[in-house]
Amino acid sequence: MNHDPLAHVRALFDLDDSVVYLDGNSLGAPPKNVAARVQDVIANQWGRRLIRSWSEGWWTAPERIGDRIGKLVGAAPGQVVVADSTSVNLFKALMAAVRGTDRSEIVVDAGTFPTDGYIARSVADLTGLALRPVDPDHLAVHDRTAVVLLNHVDYRTGRLLDMAELTARAHAAGAKVVWDLCHSAGVLPIELDRLNVDLAVGCTYKFLNGGPGSPAFLYVPTAAQPGFHQPLTGWTGHRAPFAMTPDYTPDGGVSRARAGTPDIVSMLTLDAALDVWDQVDLRDVRAKGLALTAHFRGLVEDLPGIEVITPADEWRGHQVSLRHRDAESLMRRLIERDVIGDHRPPDVLRFGFAPLYNSFEDAERAAAVLKELL
Amino acid sequence: MNHDPLAHVRALFDLDDSVVYLDGNSLGAPPKNVAARVQDVIANQWGRRLIRSWSEGWWTAPERIGDRIGKLVGAAPGQVVVADSTSVNLFKALMAAVRGTDRSEIVVDAGTFPTDGYIARSVADLTGLALRPVDPDHLAVHDRTAVVLLNHVDYRTGRLLDMAELTARAHAAGAKVVWDLCHSAGVLPIELDRLNVDLAVGCTYKFLNGGPGSPAFLYVPTAAQPGFHQPLTGWTGHRAPFAMTPDYTPDGGVSRARAGTPDIVSMLTLDAALDVWDQVDLRDVRAKGLALTAHFRGLVEDLPGIEVITPADEWRGHQVSLRHRDAESLMRRLIERDVIGDHRPPDVLRFGFAPLYNSFEDAERAAAVLKELL
Repeated sequence: MNHDPLAHVRALFDLDDSVVYLDGNSLGAPPKNVAARVQDVIANQWGRRLIRSWSEGWWTAPERIGDRIGKLVGAAPGQVVVADSTSVNLFKALMAAVRGTDRSEIVVDAGTFPTDGYIARSVADLTGLALRPVDPDHLAVHDRTAVVLLNHVDYRTGRLLDMAELTARAHAAGAKVVWDLCHSAGVLPIELDRLNVDLAVGCTYKFLNGGPGSPAFLYVPTAAQPGFHQPLTGWTGHRAPFAMTPDYTPDGGVSRARAGTPDIVSMLTLDAALDVWDQVDLRDVRAKGLALTAHFRGLVEDLPGIEVITPADEWRGHQVSLRHRDAESLMRRLIERDVIGDHRPPDVLRFGFAPLYNSFEDAERAAAVLKELL
Repeated sequence: MNHDPLAHVRALFDLDDSVVYLDGNSLGAPPKNVAARVQDVIANQWGRRLIRSWSEGWWTAPERIGDRIGKLVGAAPGQVVVADSTSVNLFKALMAAVRGTDRSEIVVDAGTFPTDGYIARSVADLTGLALRPVDPDHLAVHDRTAVVLLNHVDYRTGRLLDMAELTARAHAAGAKVVWDLCHSAGVLPIELDRLNVDLAVGCTYKFLNGGPGSPAFLYVPTAAQPGFHQPLTGWTGHRAPFAMTPDYTPDGGVSRARAGTPDIVSMLTLDAALDVWDQVDLRDVRAKGLALTAHFRGLVEDLPGIEVITPADEWRGHQVSLRHRDAESLMRRLIERDVIGDHRPPDVLRFGFAPLYNSFEDAERAAAVLKELL
């Protein structure tokens, strides 16, 4: 049996033991402390302190919580802000990245999560640049490439890209790189500062367990902040928002990446969820994720009709994706049997392993039910 | 004493009777049913149903709750979506309004809430149009005006604009009009459909009591939906989001105004708050708001050093704004005495009257404390 150095962390989550939940790569499970914290936000901060709460912590929550996420992605304080959705933050990041460029194209990985490709297309159309989808295995960056947008972990296959190597390759051609960390933030060590990543975005409702649709984050390194100009110039990104001047002057720091009024109830739900990371080391989380996915892989790879499409080496995130002709109906029957993963068209079954709360027994129960159904 | 046909509604809110809360035009107070509803969202919908909740009501919440707001602003079903912030929705609305135009300017009211002006400037810069601030009293719309952006109620003075007259004037010149309903939605009758308004946006955390930074709404009338193209082409606005195709095809209806994954905890907080309107008639709400503000005005207009800048006639929203040389320190002292309004630079005191929970006694207590301080 595998040793699990994080076994005690599962108790921090509100889980139903009759269910094997393997979809934390789509919606993380709630940490137990969230419910009481949100009650306090509603009853006391909103109900009793009312408007005064804006100056008692709410206004600066996007930067404060951003710094907590920064710790998990290798960003020193003052470089991450929590705001809006991943899609909206991608728009800000790409528009800022290509602003004033004399280069002519945006490059995106061809297997990207759809929203990344859609937003990249929109930015290309708005700015007159071309959009070139590429296979990350053959990433050719030219002197006409303004920016490369890459997914750290492929949502479909679970493949993990080499951030160091690909960032260096983009930089060698004078291009910027924007990383989407939706499927990696919180569950493996990331070193944005050390790798000189230009910009990064990510959601917080998957492995960060921030709640359904919880606000996303955006990383803008300190040195890039003076040149970061994004078109969603809402009042909360202003240098002096309460002066209410007619002209927009962006904040001098990462707050210029903010747009409208921050969504406090959801943001403080996320804040509570992040407490879990005060007790864990990301290297342990990563090691357990690799062990869990290896264990599950070993149990299912020889089942009839199954093809494992997640890399067998360490270049994978914390999911195992299986191809099967009847993927959609198979997942429906798995869910009926309380094994919850998801299906991605046309024929992919995804099983996400959240190292903070999934156990080796979860892997075994899921594999056993899958075997029965096949 | 004034008769108050809505006196019983106050009991639906969680209020501290030791405080006179007159800042509901900035952050509405929480309805009592919100706390339990949010607990259910966290503990049951998220905690027990997990990812399955997306197909059990979450995915369509933006349109369902949009229809509830639609009822309050005179929009038939299928035309309002709840999403993002007001700033982000303004960006979508203005970008869609000017797309493909052969006209050369955007007009905005000169006293607009800052974020509206900032976003209009950004859209003008992105699209190469000019931005022309105007006094709404002298709204000249030309054949070169693509769109006019107006605030229904001026956040500073409380003045209410004539939506019917100004919409007709814009249309007579062939221009579109976008209305910002932040300070009017939920507290006075609005007739977006009847007036053929082109687009409208609004926040939900003021008089709609949706919670701090709760998601905003966007109105796109049915006839305008096929031509509504906005650049925040996130995956949830796609016609078939779960097909995860590489190309973006917008939804056929109002869902094309969505961008990223909806923020469910905040959205369902708002949903709970909207239950209050099931029990009230907006005409009663409007009548009480006018009576409350008239009553307060009468009590304070002759105080030394005070100038009332809110219109005395019915062209006002539900706030009374006073000019005073020492507005900032005066508001600080009022708050110390548990009378909560707010200050807008340089010299304006704002007192918002939320007809659903403010009483005539609130007006009298606030006026008495203000008189003492002066």
